[in-house]
Amino acid sequence: MGDSRAIGVFDSGLGGLTVAKRIMELMPEERIVYFGDTGRVPYGTKGVSTIKKYAVEDERFLISQNVKMIVAACGTVSAVAADTGKELPVPFVEVISHSVKDAVSVTKNKKIGVLGTPATIKSHAHKKLIEKLLPDALVIETAAPLLVSLAEEGWYTPDNEVARLTAEKYLDEMKSAGVDTIILGCTHFPVFKELFSRLLPDVILIDMGASAAKYIKDTLEKSGAVNTGGAGEHKFFASDKPVTFEKVVKIFLRDNGGDIKIDLVDVEKNEKSND
Amino acid sequence: MGDSRAIGVFDSGLGGLTVAKRIMELMPEERIVYFGDTGRVPYGTKGVSTIKKYAVEDERFLISQNVKMIVAACGTVSAVAADTGKELPVPFVEVISHSVKDAVSVTKNKKIGVLGTPATIKSHAHKKLIEKLLPDALVIETAAPLLVSLAEEGWYTPDNEVARLTAEKYLDEMKSAGVDTIILGCTHFPVFKELFSRLLPDVILIDMGASAAKYIKDTLEKSGAVNTGGAGEHKFFASDKPVTFEKVVKIFLRDNGGDIKIDLVDVEKNEKSND
Repeated sequence: MGDSRAIGVFDSGLGGLTVAKRIMELMPEERIVYFGDTGRVPYGTKGVSTIKKYAVEDERFLISQNVKMIVAACGTVSAVAADTGKELPVPFVEVISHSVKDAVSVTKNKKIGVLGTPATIKSHAHKKLIEKLLPDALVIETAAPLLVSLAEEGWYTPDNEVARLTAEKYLDEMKSAGVDTIILGCTHFPVFKELFSRLLPDVILIDMGASAAKYIKDTLEKSGAVNTGGAGEHKFFASDKPVTFEKVVKIFLRDNGGDIKIDLVDVEKNEKSND
Repeated sequence: MGDSRAIGVFDSGLGGLTVAKRIMELMPEERIVYFGDTGRVPYGTKGVSTIKKYAVEDERFLISQNVKMIVAACGTVSAVAADTGKELPVPFVEVISHSVKDAVSVTKNKKIGVLGTPATIKSHAHKKLIEKLLPDALVIETAAPLLVSLAEEGWYTPDNEVARLTAEKYLDEMKSAGVDTIILGCTHFPVFKELFSRLLPDVILIDMGASAAKYIKDTLEKSGAVNTGGAGEHKFFASDKPVTFEKVVKIFLRDNGGDIKIDLVDVEKNEKSND
């Protein structure tokens, strides 16, 4: 049997490519249709009603691409607009709950850090769920907006002094509190793994993309929806082509090799554009 | 005589408040209607056609507010979408040409630096105009996207180590080249003046808002359009209220005192929203 339709993945921008990459690594047989809303990025600093409106439009676009599942590869959408996935005709996967379950299952001292965008942190989405699963947990939340810009500038390696100092500032409270697990609550943040590991060598870093990918694999297997019809090509769409586009795609898909072709789409009108 | 209508000022977000502030300081008798497109910020990383579309919508909103002049207090719009101001029924002021004229008139060694967003730098708007006015000038252009995030995070003072290191990196080429004048080609950047002055004490920093304000004053005086009917209240509109809104307004309007009230507006539909 199987289901040869693609898995739809969307994000406010290109950070969700880190989630797509995890899905590709874990399920090389699946095709991905990725939509990055680069014309309206970032969502993380915007208001909730705007974020919901955008999420609905992004999901509508992916549905038009005949996907078998929709993954909100965006911490902000997962935190404040996951209810937009309830009405969809295909399964909807957000990236928060799976990372929280992983964090709760690996922590030993029940001290967990959450690093996210200001909107994600203000929603307390991870914290609320952690406390539901582990009522006596201590959760330290830190909004780290600069890490998004640093990632896109390519300043994320352990030898980059600005990245190191910024990370030290943002991780300071978690370090003092002695967390043993940190959820990287924004899809941009996995690029900092090496740097964070040097600063906090004993802390387990939870990558939302890796957690979601495990769940997706499990879900597809259970429902008999794994693609058994051959790999096929991934498709990438975006709503705008920023001047730093290629650079940023390379940062988030690195190791994935080769040039990828990205089609532009007007997501508000849901039409392909020739821009 | 005089013209008691307000001066319309718009920006992709809140950075344009640094320009509005300069106008308020120089012309306390004028009223400002400010629109910050916080729902779609930043423009600086987006494509040119998107930026033009947004600029037209922003201008349309200000026209609906019955302004006597429109100021694009946005380096990105001024650099790549100033032609959208040609069709307007009121005078249009961008923030690039006036800063360039000031830079050209103060430089002694004809070595000028331009610091901007990636889109502004890629447009070479300042550089082209500098070279037109001063053909033997040496122009060093640097895209400094991280400074936007640092400003909004409030990390811009000389004692902030991340800001200092980031500024050192971005200013390095200009320093080596020996520029004696730097145009702060993004409205966020005036907050870094004190830090930049410490790093490059002999360099003159050109604030686009200050240059535009001088031009606006001159234009209004020459056309008899100065407001002689009493000061009245400034009005502030935005297309969204990000979670960091108050903090960022405070950063850019500091010294201006008091709380300001901001109305939300749906600029795509040009309606006030009750969001």
